[in-house]
Amino acid sequence: MSKQGKLKIIPLGGLGEVGKNMTAYEFQNKILVVDAGIMFPSNDMIGIDYIVPDYEYLRGRAGNVIGIVITHGHEDHIGAIHHLLNDINAPLYATPLTLGLIEGKLARNNASAKADLNEVEAGGSIEIGPFKVEFFHVCHSIPDAVALGITTPAGLVVHMSDFKFDQTPVDGWPTDYAKLAEFSQRGVDVLLSDSTNAERPGWTPSEKVIGPAFDKVFAEAQGRVIVATFASLISRVQQVADAAAKHGRKMTFAGPSMVDNVKIARKLGYLEIPDEIIVPIDQALKMQDHKVAIMCTGSQGEPSSIVGRLAAGTNRQFDLKQGDTVVLSSHPIPGNEETISRTINRLLHRGAEVIYDAIAPVHVSGHASQEEQKLLINLVQPKHFIPIHGELRHLRRHAKLAVEVGVEEDNVMVVENGQIVVLAGGNLTLGERIPGGYVFVDGDSVGEIDFGVMREREKLARAGIFLIDISVDKLSGRLLHEPEIITRGFVSPEDAEELLPEVRKHIMDVVNNGGWESEKDIANAVRSYLYEETKRRPMVLVTLSRTR
Amino acid sequence: MSKQGKLKIIPLGGLGEVGKNMTAYEFQNKILVVDAGIMFPSNDMIGIDYIVPDYEYLRGRAGNVIGIVITHGHEDHIGAIHHLLNDINAPLYATPLTLGLIEGKLARNNASAKADLNEVEAGGSIEIGPFKVEFFHVCHSIPDAVALGITTPAGLVVHMSDFKFDQTPVDGWPTDYAKLAEFSQRGVDVLLSDSTNAERPGWTPSEKVIGPAFDKVFAEAQGRVIVATFASLISRVQQVADAAAKHGRKMTFAGPSMVDNVKIARKLGYLEIPDEIIVPIDQALKMQDHKVAIMCTGSQGEPSSIVGRLAAGTNRQFDLKQGDTVVLSSHPIPGNEETISRTINRLLHRGAEVIYDAIAPVHVSGHASQEEQKLLINLVQPKHFIPIHGELRHLRRHAKLAVEVGVEEDNVMVVENGQIVVLAGGNLTLGERIPGGYVFVDGDSVGEIDFGVMREREKLARAGIFLIDISVDKLSGRLLHEPEIITRGFVSPEDAEELLPEVRKHIMDVVNNGGWESEKDIANAVRSYLYEETKRRPMVLVTLSRTR
Repeated sequence: MSKQGKLKIIPLGGLGEVGKNMTAYEFQNKILVVDAGIMFPSNDMIGIDYIVPDYEYLRGRAGNVIGIVITHGHEDHIGAIHHLLNDINAPLYATPLTLGLIEGKLARNNASAKADLNEVEAGGSIEIGPFKVEFFHVCHSIPDAVALGITTPAGLVVHMSDFKFDQTPVDGWPTDYAKLAEFSQRGVDVLLSDSTNAERPGWTPSEKVIGPAFDKVFAEAQGRVIVATFASLISRVQQVADAAAKHGRKMTFAGPSMVDNVKIARKLGYLEIPDEIIVPIDQALKMQDHKVAIMCTGSQGEPSSIVGRLAAGTNRQFDLKQGDTVVLSSHPIPGNEETISRTINRLLHRGAEVIYDAIAPVHVSGHASQEEQKLLINLVQPKHFIPIHGELRHLRRHAKLAVEVGVEEDNVMVVENGQIVVLAGGNLTLGERIPGGYVFVDGDSVGEIDFGVMREREKLARAGIFLIDISVDKLSGRLLHEPEIITRGFVSPEDAEELLPEVRKHIMDVVNNGGWESEKDIANAVRSYLYEETKRRPMVLVTLSRTR
Repeated sequence: MSKQGKLKIIPLGGLGEVGKNMTAYEFQNKILVVDAGIMFPSNDMIGIDYIVPDYEYLRGRAGNVIGIVITHGHEDHIGAIHHLLNDINAPLYATPLTLGLIEGKLARNNASAKADLNEVEAGGSIEIGPFKVEFFHVCHSIPDAVALGITTPAGLVVHMSDFKFDQTPVDGWPTDYAKLAEFSQRGVDVLLSDSTNAERPGWTPSEKVIGPAFDKVFAEAQGRVIVATFASLISRVQQVADAAAKHGRKMTFAGPSMVDNVKIARKLGYLEIPDEIIVPIDQALKMQDHKVAIMCTGSQGEPSSIVGRLAAGTNRQFDLKQGDTVVLSSHPIPGNEETISRTINRLLHRGAEVIYDAIAPVHVSGHASQEEQKLLINLVQPKHFIPIHGELRHLRRHAKLAVEVGVEEDNVMVVENGQIVVLAGGNLTLGERIPGGYVFVDGDSVGEIDFGVMREREKLARAGIFLIDISVDKLSGRLLHEPEIITRGFVSPEDAEELLPEVRKHIMDVVNNGGWESEKDIANAVRSYLYEETKRRPMVLVTLSRTR
């Protein structure tokens, strides 16, 4: 079949991770968007709630976007949908569970009205303008995940979102190997694949290995069992429910996102938990400790989560008890290690047993390791390969693996977000460069916080502020009264008592001696003086009124 | 032998890690201090340079401190010595290399004059008042490390500082098993031991495994090889020198701490590098790339280190080149994962090959893993066991291991910093509780930053500041001119242009309408307004002059 036209592959979004939260495909000015997720800020992005991909390119072409396809229901793939729908009104396609989770999310954000939601089934295919999209099942740490075959006149692209090759998944539904083989028969022009675990040798263990670990935890726990995991980790809920049933415990859920997701997953048949196992939390808290298992969020130690609050002793609904066993059923997300460690220490300190990944296999990754990544490439036999979903270190590693299993080195492309790649005439070339950064969300404001604001915040935090309010005589330039000084984050109140009178005296000397023209000169003089005295550099701000 | 008197064991210092940086022993009012190190701040301690143990207890008894014993030359064991000697004038004892590193450190801090430094040899012993201290060699990631047998009339304590059981250490000097066995013959009342790797099963690999990894790196590198590690990791310097010699490269050192330490270690005979292998850095930078190996600091991605600056493109002396191979020869210190990952990505982005622990075994831990920890306990056969050097999670784990290998559960004590443990009559009991926290060092100030100041900094960083300067008529309370507004870290300049006029108008309404008494009322009104408008809570400060 001869190739016609140009397909643009546009990786967008992901904090240093290419195409993680969003990728777009453009053919003859028609655009298909794949996923619309959020990322959580890194440790140096203080005060930021979350980050959405910079999809300026799509916003400027909103009328050309003809479809939004979502691969699975994790926040890093669905979390920005309400932002996207705000700007772009296009039909959205997803599998039943993913769609259920999206509906819940849109309702919470009062954005349901804008949405044109369409259900697709894994194994099905739809035509969206020039794009024929084939959805096929993949294993991941949430049920009903799919990857995509995208056919246009320019060729066939296989877009693997997050996946692993679990031979014994909890829901009994392995990745659709037949479809991958079928694609290879047809000839795959480009494979895009998940690089998250590209540094991890071997195979990612099956979800099944968690079963015995939970069995042991439930067998040994004397008091309540409290299992924390991601609200979207539906298969983990099933495993805990199975263990609870086996060991004669009732189960309850705490936290709105966990409660919502379980409700949706049960309604749609993705969770098989008999009604009699589940009790409302009020009832659970009145039962004997060894008869109860509580599932909740907070496995990353987030201070505002239930586990975070239990660790700090600030949870309203219930408190930690001596004899509780807390299971943190997740791996630390990079950057969260310190917070999680602190949470573990606090839970131990408050008298709980704590089970976490270093102690027992209570979590496995949802992403393919090196051998699976290689198997995928061998199954699909793509002509070209683009590693996505990873930082540069992971993409480079994944690229090497691809070359090892036979993709030609020149046909492997490691790109950054915003770097358009063009498939035309069966060949892959670099296209134009568009904005590919991200947008900070803080409170109600989307994009009002930029890097400049962030650097100011960092500066404020590094040494605090030193604020001086001065009134001088309009004519003589001399002080009308003693300068007012306010400091925050600079010295402790006790030390301020000693330091501030000296600084005040110095300011008065500076002002009354003249030789300054503006607030800036006074601020500079104070800055030098403070550095001399303390070797610290607070942000110095001067407000000046000239009156009389 | 009948036991007499009371020995107080006093763990001090370590950020959540018990006894990590300092432990004291007190017998009949005579105090022996073991180690005086610093910790680096966690991610939420913004603007803090480092942390020293709170040794208020010792300061109040400065005249009773009769000796300071240092186990090895790492920062977390020697970094606070100049602070300690400022308050306490006692003779200090250490092995030759440790002493050399301490001398360098004291000289850099202009504190040499105060120091009474005494050299001891591993295998030797000294009497310091009622304490008989036996120094014996242990393997660790720095040469000349020792652990201690401390005998008083109350009994024998074995104080293991950082250690591992390396059967093939680079310097050919294994841990002194005979001494440990001898102690067990005499009867050990208390063993204190390193819990760092208590969650790691098996044995920590020997330093020797790094040799082949470096051999491979040097064999494959096309351009310069740049190896980053800790300045104190002397054995790594030896291994890199060996690889350089073998592959016909000259070696040079960059960064003052690295240069200093190598000089001291060579002078004292702890490094065997022929003179002809080493060239000054100026010369190295002029040589052919494949003839050069550079060793420097920055394996943790610290922005101010050489590797940090190479990654950012801000290193003055030399820049990264296409074809350079950068080796990060260390494991991430918990909390540094994100910074290191960013550094790796940036180095790759700038054209270097980057080798790190996930890719090749270019680092091994210097701490004993579970099997070594168990072997130690079996060798020493202590009656009582106190896990030290670890967070609560590690201490609890280590305590379980001790019980597994036969220490009676009642004889294992997990304590916090500041919790005195008393050995008397052959039994261990909890003693009094003293301050056991830490003191922040920021610029010149030691202890002026407290948790209150830190929380203020965090608050400043979370949403920035919003500063309002107002002048009102003393009598009417009405504004004399428009309020002046200064914001930092709140909104970007563009958004400020839109928002600030509205806020200014609101402030004018609030002030001119009366109904306020102080700055506080105005600040509260503005705070509510800003939250309403932006859903963010900057720190609002008001300065008010009443004039006319």
